[in-house]
Amino acid sequence: MLIVKKFGGTSVANKERIFNVAKRCIEDYKKGNDVVVVLSAMGKYTDELITMAKDINEKPPKREMDMLFTIGEQMSVALMAMAMDSMEIPAVSLNAFQVAMHTTSAHGSARLKKIDAARIRRELDNRRIVVVTGFQGIDKYNDYTTLGRGGSDTTAVALAAALHADACEIYTDVDGVYTADPRKVPKARKLKEITYDEMLDLATLGAGVLHNRSVEMAKKYGVPLVVRSSLNNSEGTVVKEEVTVERMLISGVALDTDAVRIAVIGLKDSPGVAFKLFDTLAKKNINVDMILQSIGRAGTKDISFTVDKNDLDDAMGVLEANQSRIGYVELHAEKNIAKLSIVGAGMMSNPGVAAKMFESLYNEGVNINMIATSEIRVTVLINEKDGVRAMNAVHDAFNLAD
Amino acid sequence: MLIVKKFGGTSVANKERIFNVAKRCIEDYKKGNDVVVVLSAMGKYTDELITMAKDINEKPPKREMDMLFTIGEQMSVALMAMAMDSMEIPAVSLNAFQVAMHTTSAHGSARLKKIDAARIRRELDNRRIVVVTGFQGIDKYNDYTTLGRGGSDTTAVALAAALHADACEIYTDVDGVYTADPRKVPKARKLKEITYDEMLDLATLGAGVLHNRSVEMAKKYGVPLVVRSSLNNSEGTVVKEEVTVERMLISGVALDTDAVRIAVIGLKDSPGVAFKLFDTLAKKNINVDMILQSIGRAGTKDISFTVDKNDLDDAMGVLEANQSRIGYVELHAEKNIAKLSIVGAGMMSNPGVAAKMFESLYNEGVNINMIATSEIRVTVLINEKDGVRAMNAVHDAFNLAD
Repeated sequence: MLIVKKFGGTSVANKERIFNVAKRCIEDYKKGNDVVVVLSAMGKYTDELITMAKDINEKPPKREMDMLFTIGEQMSVALMAMAMDSMEIPAVSLNAFQVAMHTTSAHGSARLKKIDAARIRRELDNRRIVVVTGFQGIDKYNDYTTLGRGGSDTTAVALAAALHADACEIYTDVDGVYTADPRKVPKARKLKEITYDEMLDLATLGAGVLHNRSVEMAKKYGVPLVVRSSLNNSEGTVVKEEVTVERMLISGVALDTDAVRIAVIGLKDSPGVAFKLFDTLAKKNINVDMILQSIGRAGTKDISFTVDKNDLDDAMGVLEANQSRIGYVELHAEKNIAKLSIVGAGMMSNPGVAAKMFESLYNEGVNINMIATSEIRVTVLINEKDGVRAMNAVHDAFNLAD
Repeated sequence: MLIVKKFGGTSVANKERIFNVAKRCIEDYKKGNDVVVVLSAMGKYTDELITMAKDINEKPPKREMDMLFTIGEQMSVALMAMAMDSMEIPAVSLNAFQVAMHTTSAHGSARLKKIDAARIRRELDNRRIVVVTGFQGIDKYNDYTTLGRGGSDTTAVALAAALHADACEIYTDVDGVYTADPRKVPKARKLKEITYDEMLDLATLGAGVLHNRSVEMAKKYGVPLVVRSSLNNSEGTVVKEEVTVERMLISGVALDTDAVRIAVIGLKDSPGVAFKLFDTLAKKNINVDMILQSIGRAGTKDISFTVDKNDLDDAMGVLEANQSRIGYVELHAEKNIAKLSIVGAGMMSNPGVAAKMFESLYNEGVNINMIATSEIRVTVLINEKDGVRAMNAVHDAFNLAD
C-alpha cells in the first residue's frame, strides 16, 4: 500500500513531536507500506519569518517572501529525515525543486499544475520513507512559490493523486471533522464520514480542518482522504464521494472570523460596473466570497462583499487606485464580522432548512447582515461578537449533538 | 563594470548590518555597474542549525545536514533582496537550484564543477542586483550540497570567473591581509598586495581571511580579488599574480589551531602500508595535511599526520574500523597542537629563512614537533599553548612590523 501522510506545523513543533510523527510513519513503513510524508513549517516558524521580513521591509515583494517562507518546510523535512535515520529507518527529504512541484506564478497563492512523481517513485523503490516539503512549489521561471493557506494539505492530496496512493491521511490537532468546532461548541460531535462536497463547503466556510483546494483536488481525482489526530490513534473522519452511514439533515455548523466586509458605495447604476470592480480584484488574485448588491441613492448602487482578512490591504489599495476607473463615491471596510454557515447534503431534499436556521438566530437576537446559499449550504454574515453564541444556537436547533 | 561582492555571516548578522551591506551594493549599482552579491548565513545561524540537528540525531546524515544548512543562506539572500526593495532598488535572490551551481556529491565538502551564468545574466540585463546564496550547490542527483569551510568565498570567486567579472571583492571583519593575525600579533601590519601563491599558503595555514579553494580558483581563472572590510571603507589588500610593491623576505606569519595530530603506531614496515592508510582516509573525503613517518620498534614504522578538527571523529572512526586491513598496533589523537607558518615568495631566492625561524623559536624555548616546507613557506607543528608567543617572536625576527 502507498500511504501519503500530512502533518501540520503543530505536529512537528518540537523534538518530541517530530519523533512522534517519525514513529507513526515508521509503523506503516514496517508493515511493508510505501510511505510519503508531507510536512509544514515547525510550529509558528512561518509567523516568525513574516516578522523577520516585515522588520526589514513593511511590504516585502511576494517573490522574496516565498523565497523566505520555503525555508520553513525545508527545515522540517531535513530534521524529520534525521529523526528517522536515528531510528535506523532510511529516509530522504525533498523540496519543491527536487520533487518538481510545478505551480503557477502567483506568489503566495500559487496553484499546482504538475507534479513529477519520478524522483519520489525512485526513492520509494529503494525502500526509503520520502519526506516532502508541503506548501511550496516552483514556477516556470524556476522561482519558489507558495500555495497559500492550507497549502500543505493541497500538496499531500496532489502527491496522493500523482502517485495513485491508496490513502491520504491528513493529521491535525483535532481528531476528525466535527458537527462544529468543539472549542466553540462544547456539544459538537465527531462525524465518521462526510462527502467531498460537504467538506468543501465546511472548508471554505472556515471549519479550519481542511482547506477547500485540497478537498476540491481530492474530489477531482477521487483521492480517499482521512482526517485524523496527530496526538492520538482514534479513527478520524473519512472524506469520500458518498456517505454510507445514516444521513443527517445537516452535517455541521461552521464559523469563519477571517473574513472582512468591504462596501463600495455610490457606484453608477450601469452595466459593466460590477465586472470592472471584481475584475480589478481578480487581477490581484484576491478571492471574493459573499456579494450583496443594493440600491443606493439617486440612480447609484452599492456593492458589499467579503474577502479574507489577509487580502484586505491589497483589496483596499487596488480599489483606491482605481476609483475613477470603477467610478464610486466611498469605500468602507468592516472587520468585526463573522460568517456562520450550515452545511449538509441532506438539505437538498428538505425545504425549510434555511428558515430553521434564521428562526434560531432570531430567537437568539442575532442580526443577519447578508445571506448566501448554495445547494448544500446556507451562510449568513453576522457581527463577530455574536459568532460563538449563534453557532451554539444553530447547533442545538438542528440537534447535531445527538 | 561587473562586480561580485561577497559578505560573510557577521556582515549580515542583523537588520542594521543587512542595510549596511545593501547600501554598499547600491552605491556600486547606482554608478551603473552590474552587481552580484554573494551571502553567507546570518551570524551564527549555521551553528544554530547544527545544534538543532544534533539534538535530533547525534550523527545526522550529511545529505540531510546539507538540506538543513542551505536554508541559512536562503534566509540571508531573501532578506537582502527585501532590504534593497525597500530602498527602491530592484533586486532578486537566487539559490543554488536557481543559479544552477553544480558540484560534486561530497556532502559537506563538495567541489564546484560548473556554474550556469544564464539566469544571472538575464537578471543583470534587467538591471537587477542579483543576490546569490554562497556555500551551497546541487549535485547530479539534484540534491543540495555544501562547499565546506570558506565555501561562500569559493562561490563568489567561481561566479566572478563564470561571469568574467571585473572585480571580486571579499568583505570580511578585518580590513585586509595582515603580516599576522592582528588579534594575536599587535604589531601586525596590513599588506597592500599579495600574490595568489602567498595567499594560498596563508589561507591553507589558517590565517583565516580567505579559504584556499577560493584563492586556488582565483589564481586558476585570473580573478582579481580584493579583501576588504565590511565595516569601513579602507582600501583592503589586492590578491593577484605578481606583486608590484617592494618585496619583503616573507609576507606573513600564520597560526592554525584547527588541526589535530593523529599518530598511527606499529605499522608493518612494508610497501603499500602508507597507501592503504591514506587511501582509507581519502575515500572518506578527509584531507590530510602534514605527514611524518618515523621508524618504530622492531621492523615497524609510525606515521603521524594532521587533519582538521572537524574530521577527527570521522578519521578515528574509519581507521579503527580498518585496523586489521591497514595493520597497526595503536592509534593516538593529539588535540593541543598548532601549526605555525611563515609565507613569502621572497624566500625562494633567499636561503636561511627556515633557519632564522627555527632560531627565533629556539630563543623562545618553543619545541618543534614536525616540520614541513614548500617553495614559499615553512610550517612547524608546535604545542597549542606556545602558539601566540611563538607567532609574535617570529613576526619580530623578520621585522614584519616595519
